[in-house]
Amino acid sequence: MESSSVVLARRAKVCGLLGGRPFVLAAGEAPPRNYAANAYAFRASSHFLYLAGVSVEGSYLLVHGDGEASLFVPAWDAAWALWHGEPPALEALAAATGAAVRPLAELPAALAGLGALTLPPPGLAACQALSRLLERPVEPGVLGGGDALLADAMIQARLRHDEAALAGIREAVSVTAAAFAAGLAATRPGALESSVRAAMEAPLTARGLTTAYAPIISVRGEVLHNNAYGNRMAAGDLLLVDFGAESAGGWASDVTRTWPVSGRLTGVQRAWHGLVEAALEAGIAAAGPGVRYRDVHVAAARVLAEGLVELGVLRGDAGAIVEEGAHALLFPHGIGHLLGLDVHDMEDLGDRAGYAPGWSRDARFGARWLRLDRVLEPGMVVTVEPGLYIVPAILREPSLAGWVREHLDLEALARCSEVRGIRLEDDILITATGRENLTRHIPRSASELEAALDGVGVTK
Amino acid sequence: MESSSVVLARRAKVCGLLGGRPFVLAAGEAPPRNYAANAYAFRASSHFLYLAGVSVEGSYLLVHGDGEASLFVPAWDAAWALWHGEPPALEALAAATGAAVRPLAELPAALAGLGALTLPPPGLAACQALSRLLERPVEPGVLGGGDALLADAMIQARLRHDEAALAGIREAVSVTAAAFAAGLAATRPGALESSVRAAMEAPLTARGLTTAYAPIISVRGEVLHNNAYGNRMAAGDLLLVDFGAESAGGWASDVTRTWPVSGRLTGVQRAWHGLVEAALEAGIAAAGPGVRYRDVHVAAARVLAEGLVELGVLRGDAGAIVEEGAHALLFPHGIGHLLGLDVHDMEDLGDRAGYAPGWSRDARFGARWLRLDRVLEPGMVVTVEPGLYIVPAILREPSLAGWVREHLDLEALARCSEVRGIRLEDDILITATGRENLTRHIPRSASELEAALDGVGVTK
Repeated sequence: MESSSVVLARRAKVCGLLGGRPFVLAAGEAPPRNYAANAYAFRASSHFLYLAGVSVEGSYLLVHGDGEASLFVPAWDAAWALWHGEPPALEALAAATGAAVRPLAELPAALAGLGALTLPPPGLAACQALSRLLERPVEPGVLGGGDALLADAMIQARLRHDEAALAGIREAVSVTAAAFAAGLAATRPGALESSVRAAMEAPLTARGLTTAYAPIISVRGEVLHNNAYGNRMAAGDLLLVDFGAESAGGWASDVTRTWPVSGRLTGVQRAWHGLVEAALEAGIAAAGPGVRYRDVHVAAARVLAEGLVELGVLRGDAGAIVEEGAHALLFPHGIGHLLGLDVHDMEDLGDRAGYAPGWSRDARFGARWLRLDRVLEPGMVVTVEPGLYIVPAILREPSLAGWVREHLDLEALARCSEVRGIRLEDDILITATGRENLTRHIPRSASELEAALDGVGVTK
Repeated sequence: MESSSVVLARRAKVCGLLGGRPFVLAAGEAPPRNYAANAYAFRASSHFLYLAGVSVEGSYLLVHGDGEASLFVPAWDAAWALWHGEPPALEALAAATGAAVRPLAELPAALAGLGALTLPPPGLAACQALSRLLERPVEPGVLGGGDALLADAMIQARLRHDEAALAGIREAVSVTAAAFAAGLAATRPGALESSVRAAMEAPLTARGLTTAYAPIISVRGEVLHNNAYGNRMAAGDLLLVDFGAESAGGWASDVTRTWPVSGRLTGVQRAWHGLVEAALEAGIAAAGPGVRYRDVHVAAARVLAEGLVELGVLRGDAGAIVEEGAHALLFPHGIGHLLGLDVHDMEDLGDRAGYAPGWSRDARFGARWLRLDRVLEPGMVVTVEPGLYIVPAILREPSLAGWVREHLDLEALARCSEVRGIRLEDDILITATGRENLTRHIPRSASELEAALDGVGVTK
């Protein structure tokens, strides 16, 4: 959790951008899993977390135009304490938030006639509760009339991370590194993917933390958001692991590695793995202050295209391939996204956060899934995550990429079937002079991964 | 997952009770965690699971009065497959459900003018989607006009478990037993409660399973639904663990054990632990076909009251203590609940499921938290879970139990401060001739627990 000086500075910044307009943010509520009393673990709205610095279910932060703030909290009675324990101490909440702590029952009167702006919290129930309080519609993913002003102020504040935010991301990365070590150690031919998941989540759970998102741990790495873990790992498989811990204060990390289940890459796998790492390095090298993020995507795509031509899988000129988008047959997604309190930071605001004003998504296959296009600035943290995938859904589906398929040598591709999906992803802090790779210490190259697998006796 | 013959038999039963009225059940949807694309793990509505036997997000089961059923599924296109993998095969879904599989787009026409009954799925978003389909309000926890008919038919069907359901519960219990073994082995003075949680959840995660509810793993066992795991375990503490796995098909288990962090109970802890186990045995012995569940509660409460008088903590006649409810000062909750697809089975229907028609909750302290009062029948699975707790929130709060506090010897209680909370809980199947304890093999008594802790070297 952040200290009160951190959230006070953040609130001052947002208030300054708002020109005196008051606003209210809901922490939100835990949704029911199979009935109301059996809920998912509560996770506060990121906007609330950013400016309140505490996670209190059912509470609201009201910030006045002058920067004064009140935290409205539910009534916790003796029966609540019997079932849930001692409620948060109000003095401690006030000290942590730098806000006056007031009972929730006083919020309607405080909001009456105020014209407070807001942002939709996650979940329909929390939106509707806020809608009743404000007496106007609040819908998931929809900005009300003047609320775009608040959205833009939050984006301006959250795009460039302060020291507390960076400390949170570094904390998340540190636990993620422990999880990858455990995942490498747990990899065994014949075991289920879920056994690696169990090994990787244990270090988080043991620290009272969770993942920032549902991890991808699969020998079917060509399924981009594969959240099933039921395959049995075979010796010849590559295991793609996209995993990130969330810090105690809610900050995300997001790291991908791909390693051989047997402990040793085959020749073809090694060539493709090396190519993805070269693309990652090219993308990272391209990232820096003043650089347009789309150019990071293009830099990585160019390396992939050149390598695929060299491998004989793509035909033609690498420049033309990238220009036409044919690389997207094997690299269909974008190079990355913002990272912060959300793993796709501020994606609740849609492309308003990810795209600079006036810029919008390229409709072409591949490019359409680029989640971020802004000029990078110091303090931003972005992922760089190139990958190569042999995706039946693309190769058999004319609507996805039929128009560039003449660049593809299907016979050469058929000889690479021991590669299904490889992705490598690092978290990159943009600095005043360049960049810092926050996740480089997590084994990544073929040789680092093989050495790590050797060390735990995976290699047969 | 259940086989099609199982769900066909269940649907036939419910249809028979409905007298020809058609109904539709929503599987529901995964709620967002911090933005729409970052969702919690999907868990289908229990009513849907019970009658469809498969878990398909965003789908609907429409059952006609003649028992014919259709499963309406979302359109999974090539882009979906790119991100999420091969969609479920429609033939396999049809075979598994014994239902015709149809595109979701056809559901509005199929429902038009049908007057289909329904039950609210978990979550406001799923309720509103169903409301739009039916063109009438569907609200969480609220039964629409004729929908009580469907609720009562589902209750009649789900109260007594079929063999497939019992197999699911036994599967959940089996994994829960593995989790308790891991939790005992992970208990160490000086470690965090969360480290025990990590050890217990790993065997579930490794099998692709989850917990049926947020576990309670705490040295502050007196907080009844304590879902924080941040305390450091000290040698003199008791660790209360209330933990249940959910089977692959969604069936719950729910087991509580309490053990000494040091590996050895103190004298006072041993006396209280033995008393709770005696109450558990009395409750289990009282449970059987034809028995009113409230009498199970009273049987256990009577043993607790007698024991507490013997220990000098309560004063007066045990019968009078139970009659007046003074035992609830130390045993404030109910003796248990139904167990099935929900850990509190069918609690989404409120007391309609837990209480027999015409019976309702006793408003008195303690009794008001009894979640179940029905005549037990073969095939029901219920928990029996007595406990003793020293709860500051009760002892200092006149509104909770001031009127019976003269039964309490506060000085004697003060000498028992090394006990904070002890609960022991088993899952009991009511049989034609009596009962079967499904969870008795999980170490429970002081000596079994100490032996288990010895075996893993916890004892210093």
